[in-house]
Amino acid sequence: MAIMPPFRIVQTESTKMALIVQKYGGTSVGSPERIKNVAKRVARARAEGHDVVVVVSAMSGETNRLVALAHEMQEFPDPRELDVVLATGEQVTIGLLAMALKDIGVPAKSYTGWQVAVRTDDAHTKARIDHIDADKMRADLGEGRVVIVAGFQGVTAGGDIATLGRGGSDTSAVALAAALKADECQIYTDVDGVYTTDPRVVPEARRMSTISFEEMLELASLGSKVLQIRSVEFAGKYKVRLRVLSSLTDEGEGTLITFEEDENMEKAVVKGIAFDKNQARINVRGVSDKPGIAYQILGSIAEANIEVDMIIQNVGAQGTTDFSFTVPRGDYKPTLDLMNGLKADLGAAEVNGDDTVCKVSIVGVGMRSHAGVAAQMFRALAEEGINIQMISTSEIKVSVLIDEKYMELATRVLHKTFGLEHA
Amino acid sequence: MAIMPPFRIVQTESTKMALIVQKYGGTSVGSPERIKNVAKRVARARAEGHDVVVVVSAMSGETNRLVALAHEMQEFPDPRELDVVLATGEQVTIGLLAMALKDIGVPAKSYTGWQVAVRTDDAHTKARIDHIDADKMRADLGEGRVVIVAGFQGVTAGGDIATLGRGGSDTSAVALAAALKADECQIYTDVDGVYTTDPRVVPEARRMSTISFEEMLELASLGSKVLQIRSVEFAGKYKVRLRVLSSLTDEGEGTLITFEEDENMEKAVVKGIAFDKNQARINVRGVSDKPGIAYQILGSIAEANIEVDMIIQNVGAQGTTDFSFTVPRGDYKPTLDLMNGLKADLGAAEVNGDDTVCKVSIVGVGMRSHAGVAAQMFRALAEEGINIQMISTSEIKVSVLIDEKYMELATRVLHKTFGLEHA
Repeated sequence: MAIMPPFRIVQTESTKMALIVQKYGGTSVGSPERIKNVAKRVARARAEGHDVVVVVSAMSGETNRLVALAHEMQEFPDPRELDVVLATGEQVTIGLLAMALKDIGVPAKSYTGWQVAVRTDDAHTKARIDHIDADKMRADLGEGRVVIVAGFQGVTAGGDIATLGRGGSDTSAVALAAALKADECQIYTDVDGVYTTDPRVVPEARRMSTISFEEMLELASLGSKVLQIRSVEFAGKYKVRLRVLSSLTDEGEGTLITFEEDENMEKAVVKGIAFDKNQARINVRGVSDKPGIAYQILGSIAEANIEVDMIIQNVGAQGTTDFSFTVPRGDYKPTLDLMNGLKADLGAAEVNGDDTVCKVSIVGVGMRSHAGVAAQMFRALAEEGINIQMISTSEIKVSVLIDEKYMELATRVLHKTFGLEHA
Repeated sequence: MAIMPPFRIVQTESTKMALIVQKYGGTSVGSPERIKNVAKRVARARAEGHDVVVVVSAMSGETNRLVALAHEMQEFPDPRELDVVLATGEQVTIGLLAMALKDIGVPAKSYTGWQVAVRTDDAHTKARIDHIDADKMRADLGEGRVVIVAGFQGVTAGGDIATLGRGGSDTSAVALAAALKADECQIYTDVDGVYTTDPRVVPEARRMSTISFEEMLELASLGSKVLQIRSVEFAGKYKVRLRVLSSLTDEGEGTLITFEEDENMEKAVVKGIAFDKNQARINVRGVSDKPGIAYQILGSIAEANIEVDMIIQNVGAQGTTDFSFTVPRGDYKPTLDLMNGLKADLGAAEVNGDDTVCKVSIVGVGMRSHAGVAAQMFRALAEEGINIQMISTSEIKVSVLIDEKYMELATRVLHKTFGLEHA
């Protein structure tokens, strides 16, 4: 299997100058010492001749502190005012990082979301970016400055501060890279790239040098915490070349999320394995099998703002149906209560469930052209005596719901079955 | 002596609606509980039918925490970036107070300095307010909302965040009151008004119900910490009716700083006594008495950015001059070093000093038309055996430099001499 050579942008001996957006999360800027380390890393990229725009999160712990203060004021803090309070976290970091850069002789200038006009919609606490004005940043870059932008925040058309929701700094970075037409957006985090699976579960797990955008999107939605799913969607929409790197080491070129399915791409059929314990299963058994039942069940859950993931409907023997679905584990009890309340209306024989289940998924664009991948997965699990409770598939992934006690075993077995330890 | 009746705006049975700007300092908003108390106080003013604009400081301790973080980045933090960091303190408070008001059913909206266009000059960390756009605030007030504005901060013409320096929130409040043509600007603090002198030194000290703008200006510059001198200057320039009140009690109408010298004004010749231990005296003796000596001495001190307060030049017997002046106590050693360095150039016989001195001042507009007030002061001090080292006077104040061990005694004696314990 061919390995892509380290991309030139992260090479020290680079000759071509590039425009890079670097994003550092809360842990990477969690203390004055760490902010100084980030400054050194930024200085190095600049010394290599690149233009650098840096996006930072709030120092770790700060957002939680501010949320706690807000909750002391109001049980459900007013969203507009919560955004006013939360946006301060990133504002502190940009100022400190600018000082740290100046302290080592690197010209730098910080900007809040409103200062570079990161224009968002009005959906406070989960706003979406509409537009970014890149002129101010381009002018600074042209004058040799590092530009530092507060992640996670923007400004509405009415001039209110809006935040993008948890993990929103990743989205800020990708949006800025798109607006600036940057050559690469580098997400610095506490892992050194995207792995075939979590190395804490499978010691043989291997960092991938490249992964396709679609695969990354599936992994993000299936429980991999490396990148926020919205930032991956944004990268897809604007074709932003995205790289995940470690802020803790100076080694390695991380993982490149790419749109080019060229020959250098890794050719494995299955690229990664994701698992997620935040699952609970609900069963509604013996419902009379007539149109509208699924709507009656799922509609009431949607109204309660509970997200349903996997769904199975089995037609039974006596014209009745067994209906099963999964919800986030925190919504298990409320969903059970809801279904028990509907039991008479539905004419259901039984409502029960299980909150000791988990979802294990295999992901890879190669599945499109390789039949039998799902069968291979099911056989491997069967050989270990792992019972599959539910299945859901897409073009490039297969997910199974199993007893959570088998989660690590299933992940290890599948990792070996699909040869993911070998590059 | 006539006492002004409580001003209508602070009366509960008020019938006329007024526009009031209320300012709460760091101690008044120092905890979630205190912010809730401020919300109740604001709600009360609104229930009385007034339009209220609230200006708040950062929660006590927050600005110091942010300054310390900045100093970990740079020995002398970049002023533009320091302002980015410091401005977050007030931004947190405005959001929290808006939540606290909404929680008790009062419509409210918070604004940072840039959101209401508190336009300042470019002098980061000590910017001056040029202009405020009151339209947005008026629209909110018109719709029945309490408007909350972050004190201490504004925005430059170039869109940078700028702060106004320590105590700048008082200035913000006065400037907003001027821009809104408010009926009154109320400064809530941890004392319940302006006193004839510090009650910790003279238990008989009395809260004044009114004080003239000029007297307040002198007291602020002479060491009274109740109001920041720049806010008093601003109030003078724009004729803003200013009142100092306690945020810790619900009683009392505080002290009104007024421009109207009407019959209701208190008629005492001396209104208040200020004292200041932050003084050190430097003596340069036996300098040959020729032109340019004063410039040579004071010019070198000004260059070192040290502020000189009182100055005395005594012509001696043999055509030589003794030159004495005072500086802030923290500058005592550097100033001595500076003078010793100049000693040979100046042809001075001796350089020495004393950093155990203090300044005691009497203030009152009545002095203008009453001769003999200074003489009365000097006699009272002489009768207690207190030696006067230096004297400086203005139209409405007399200051003396004395040994600091007599500071409390001198203050008590003068308080009694001028009958300040009686209204």
